[in-house]
Amino acid sequence: MKKSRKKSRKGSGKCPIHFALEVFGDKWSLLIIRDIVFKGKSCYGEFLHSPEGVSTNILANRLAKLEANEILTKTRDPENLAKFQYDLTQKGLDLIPVLLAMTEWSAKYDFHPNNGRNIIHGAPEDLLERNKLDHDAIVAELSENIRARKEN
Amino acid sequence: MKKSRKKSRKGSGKCPIHFALEVFGDKWSLLIIRDIVFKGKSCYGEFLHSPEGVSTNILANRLAKLEANEILTKTRDPENLAKFQYDLTQKGLDLIPVLLAMTEWSAKYDFHPNNGRNIIHGAPEDLLERNKLDHDAIVAELSENIRARKEN
Repeated sequence: MKKSRKKSRKGSGKCPIHFALEVFGDKWSLLIIRDIVFKGKSCYGEFLHSPEGVSTNILANRLAKLEANEILTKTRDPENLAKFQYDLTQKGLDLIPVLLAMTEWSAKYDFHPNNGRNIIHGAPEDLLERNKLDHDAIVAELSENIRARKEN
Repeated sequence: MKKSRKKSRKGSGKCPIHFALEVFGDKWSLLIIRDIVFKGKSCYGEFLHSPEGVSTNILANRLAKLEANEILTKTRDPENLAKFQYDLTQKGLDLIPVLLAMTEWSAKYDFHPNNGRNIIHGAPEDLLERNKLDHDAIVAELSENIRARKEN
């Protein structure tokens, strides 16, 4: 424990891109974060039923890794104590700009009719236009939506 | 071949985050792109000697995949015809905002003394400050640096 605190103060010594990739840069971790940010999901069963078809062992492994890296917190659902709910920490919410940059890129290079639209649970449809005009405002709004869901 | 063209016109049908992850979202692909954008690398031997220690078979596989996905072009080095050089296409250059968003996040959550600084080959040191003030300008400058290297 002492060792890990010391390590965290000194930093990983990795280049910033490598550090980011080690923490959240695998497909399944980013799809879990996407599910929370854009699809309003918060529990194991919801993540499991995403269209990409994650397996139970990979999902459990990535949730534990994201929790260990302080991207997610895991708490008992107050309405059903047998169930856990996963929420993004501030460190996790701060990944929203990475997701937005990826969405911008895909909207340009993939031709999905809904690309960049209708992907946010209960949020406005003009995400990418507004992201270009006022990136900070859209990041704040998405973070606020997620915090509000957590409190309700 | 026809089938794949048709698929590309219709779009992948995936959500934008999933599409992006399928094209460039594995650790080694992003480290190759980082090496080109921030470290001025352009050939197989240079990628192989990055500190993360990629194996030859993974490196060859990811270079081929990035070329197939039109992120990179592979051409013979005009000064040494036995050597190939890899350059980012516009589709690849358009990933710079994703790398910048990852760098911003790591600079906040990792404590590497050089985080976000000195990581750009021949570019100014105040990358992250300038990215906050004028994101479009820093993306254009990085793209321009890469194009200029290619031409020299």
